[in-house]
Amino acid sequence: VPVIFRQLFDSKSSTYSYLLGDARSGLAALIDPVRQQVDRDLQLVEELDLTLELVLETHLHVDHVTGAAELRERTGAKVVASERGAPTADLHVREGDVVRVGAIDVRVLETPGHSEDSLSFLAGNKLFTGDALLIRGTGRTDLQNGDPGQLYDSLTQILFHLPEETEVWPAHDDAGRCMSTIGEEKRHNPRLAGRSRVWFVDFMNKCRLEPPRLIDVALPANRACGNVTTEVSP
Amino acid sequence: VPVIFRQLFDSKSSTYSYLLGDARSGLAALIDPVRQQVDRDLQLVEELDLTLELVLETHLHVDHVTGAAELRERTGAKVVASERGAPTADLHVREGDVVRVGAIDVRVLETPGHSEDSLSFLAGNKLFTGDALLIRGTGRTDLQNGDPGQLYDSLTQILFHLPEETEVWPAHDDAGRCMSTIGEEKRHNPRLAGRSRVWFVDFMNKCRLEPPRLIDVALPANRACGNVTTEVSP
Repeated sequence: VPVIFRQLFDSKSSTYSYLLGDARSGLAALIDPVRQQVDRDLQLVEELDLTLELVLETHLHVDHVTGAAELRERTGAKVVASERGAPTADLHVREGDVVRVGAIDVRVLETPGHSEDSLSFLAGNKLFTGDALLIRGTGRTDLQNGDPGQLYDSLTQILFHLPEETEVWPAHDDAGRCMSTIGEEKRHNPRLAGRSRVWFVDFMNKCRLEPPRLIDVALPANRACGNVTTEVSP
Repeated sequence: VPVIFRQLFDSKSSTYSYLLGDARSGLAALIDPVRQQVDRDLQLVEELDLTLELVLETHLHVDHVTGAAELRERTGAKVVASERGAPTADLHVREGDVVRVGAIDVRVLETPGHSEDSLSFLAGNKLFTGDALLIRGTGRTDLQNGDPGQLYDSLTQILFHLPEETEVWPAHDDAGRCMSTIGEEKRHNPRLAGRSRVWFVDFMNKCRLEPPRLIDVALPANRACGNVTTEVSP
């Protein structure tokens, strides 16, 4: 399948979004789009002669508001999220589901631990990890029903069983490294390489992190797919 | 040739650098490295089991200080620049030269106009354009012996003659789009698509831009490959 692929960066929230398109059918998905970047993203979709069919959310973000609802409204795209994610998504997926973007199969992997709804998406050899596996790091585990032991299992028992050359495309990297691979993270992630589950749980439990600046706005907004005018009850 | 390729971002100066390696020989080059990111870049080189052989400079930057001298000092890498670029480079190249990174041929294209020393580097289907061709934009032409007519010719007569699927990897993109292609820029670059040379020259001459904040530090430093303790006469 000839794939169109773009990493997109929102500098304000330091978030990576991704455009994934099937060049032949022209059908495309945006992964973790940011509300403030919807115009940019749609312009790119149009210039690349693509039709936006799906918006994929790796999880309920706490650091930015998703562009999902606005993209849905402006294009008719369907929003895909975990069963434990945004209740207003159009399609709720779970472990083993396959979502199709034209001829591209996107496999859904449940990788909870950063948040209870964390998914990773595997398309060919590209793995979109959200905030579960980061580059030389991991997501935090002290919010959103996070759980360090569960995250350790998600990373070491699920993601690290993928081929070493699998490309890792996360939702953030504050050091400006744009991607990694499973092999690299197995060997060089300081929280995981040679670390036991007990060590990891202890390390994560000792992390004292500030709450994300935007969490009180972002979390309810993202339960509504970023449609901040919609009221949603949990 | 199996290629290792990474885009790297310096958020302070909003600069993209690139790591290009030949996976078989383990030899690698950094393109437009940033001085403040040398530790990050060398750690990645080491973790990927690469040996840094070359540092390639697309031009004398005015918005950040290059990491070239420090990389040279710490690894023995040779610094490659235009004949009209840093006089302290180890190797001065010109149009048509080919620089080898292991088994990867990197073709040197002279693309002046943003600065008199602007080079683009072509490795396979990856084109590193520095500040000459940007995504949906171009570099400015009011500094460093820039010339709008010359930049128009560089972009339309040289870069736009490359295959449409050639990937464009610039030194900056303030909108957070990480890459483009020659075909996209031919069709959608608002300064070039359907624009005459006369229009472009007029447009660029009418741009009134602030001088880059760091120019008085960066330009002399970069003539010394970023070695700010070395005195260099023009």
